Amino acid sequence: MTTMTDHPFDTDTAVERTGEHRYATALTDRWSALGGTPNGGYMLAVALRALAREVRLPDPLVVSAHFLRPGAVGPGEVLTEVARAGRRVATGEARLLQDGREVLRLLATFGDLEGADGRTALFNGPPDLPPPDETPEVLDGGVMPGVSITERVEYRAPRPPGWARGEPGGDPSVEFWMRYRDGRDADPLALAALVDAAAPAVLDIGARGSATIELTVHVRARPAPGWLACRASTRHVIGGYHEEDFEIWDSRGRLVAQSRQFALLPG
Amino acid sequence: MTTMTDHPFDTDTAVERTGEHRYATALTDRWSALGGTPNGGYMLAVALRALAREVRLPDPLVVSAHFLRPGAVGPGEVLTEVARAGRRVATGEARLLQDGREVLRLLATFGDLEGADGRTALFNGPPDLPPPDETPEVLDGGVMPGVSITERVEYRAPRPPGWARGEPGGDPSVEFWMRYRDGRDADPLALAALVDAAAPAVLDIGARGSATIELTVHVRARPAPGWLACRASTRHVIGGYHEEDFEIWDSRGRLVAQSRQFALLPG
Repeated sequence: MTTMTDHPFDTDTAVERTGEHRYATALTDRWSALGGTPNGGYMLAVALRALAREVRLPDPLVVSAHFLRPGAVGPGEVLTEVARAGRRVATGEARLLQDGREVLRLLATFGDLEGADGRTALFNGPPDLPPPDETPEVLDGGVMPGVSITERVEYRAPRPPGWARGEPGGDPSVEFWMRYRDGRDADPLALAALVDAAAPAVLDIGARGSATIELTVHVRARPAPGWLACRASTRHVIGGYHEEDFEIWDSRGRLVAQSRQFALLPG
Repeated sequence: MTTMTDHPFDTDTAVERTGEHRYATALTDRWSALGGTPNGGYMLAVALRALAREVRLPDPLVVSAHFLRPGAVGPGEVLTEVARAGRRVATGEARLLQDGREVLRLLATFGDLEGADGRTALFNGPPDLPPPDETPEVLDGGVMPGVSITERVEYRAPRPPGWARGEPGGDPSVEFWMRYRDGRDADPLALAALVDAAAPAVLDIGARGSATIELTVHVRARPAPGWLACRASTRHVIGGYHEEDFEIWDSRGRLVAQSRQFALLPG
């Protein structure tokens, strides 16, 4: 279920159909990550929104995006292709290009989360966090200068990570609340962006950043309105390459998204 | 680093170039999974071997495969495309078709694992297993009738999972040794197949199987020769959809591959 509102997430991921399977878009400066380029999850959402227009099933279930080049603020084009449209699931591809150069390519399989009537069995629970209104913001003053995504997304944690105090604690594992600052609730498309919207867990081992090579998102349920409880961790940094695992649980305590990315520490 | 030997894994994943970016292959009956169709990891390896021929970098670093239809024993075609060939990483796409119908599509980013000279920091260790020669086979008699991949791959575990005794224990989490039965050592291409070569962890909650929708593999190092220590688990089964996480550690105790798949319990 993708929704369109006049919230910046929706206006800034909007796509306009310009031809068969082709869409025009414009990346804005409101979702920049560390380094100043558009956040990867934001770009993923732009490409995914275009592909969603081509698919008759409502929810992205699993999205795999490979990042080829840094994006830039400015116009872009999304080329889509439906590889298989089944009754229960449909799989397609989207490519985001800027100046004719490919920035990211993704494969996504869509389905209907409301129609998922199989068995449920959980062996993990949501982060144990105090209520959001009793939890301080992670960032002093709320935002990180030059990282405009922190003006759009709010993060609260009972124990802010060490890097946020300038003292990396050595533990790349963190739990926190997250939401859009002005209260737009998350939908599956927003979840696919939000799994990449927080600071990399490796900042707490003193890394200066993390360049995403690939990001896979599983959307597990349509989220209830309200704050999202998040858990991020990196367990294996090997030769600079590392994974980051991310979970998002909704305000009713249900897992709504899970992601893993493959990334590289800056050299 | 892909190697070619006369081992069944190599002969059965062989591809022959038939045109620009096109390869012919033949899926054999020696890698069938539960249900009798070719194992997903095996089909992934066929497509990846073709794409590796088009890329100048030696190692698949991260592979994301979406499974569109069951494969079948018989001829197939792999169509490849290099999306971006950089100095340090290169990304491409491969599609496996049978009878003109697409069976799987994958994106893969290649690099050089020996050239990964960044930082290493680990927050997880290998499975704690007794030596392989003191560990019994998981399957009584070694193989599962009708599941021919169990004739190619050997599994040993100190406490075989409950499902293997006909008594699912309710814990979809298992550690075990794995290797090709006749001693072919794993290389990165083999790792990308082996992460999908064991029985699904959800068998231990009484599931009759698990249909892979998407599989992402991270190859983290070229493995040392010998047995592979594996850890598989599922933590969230929601409406039938579930993830399976898989780690492979080599005989020197290094993480060499990590994967997550998104799958559906049979209805």
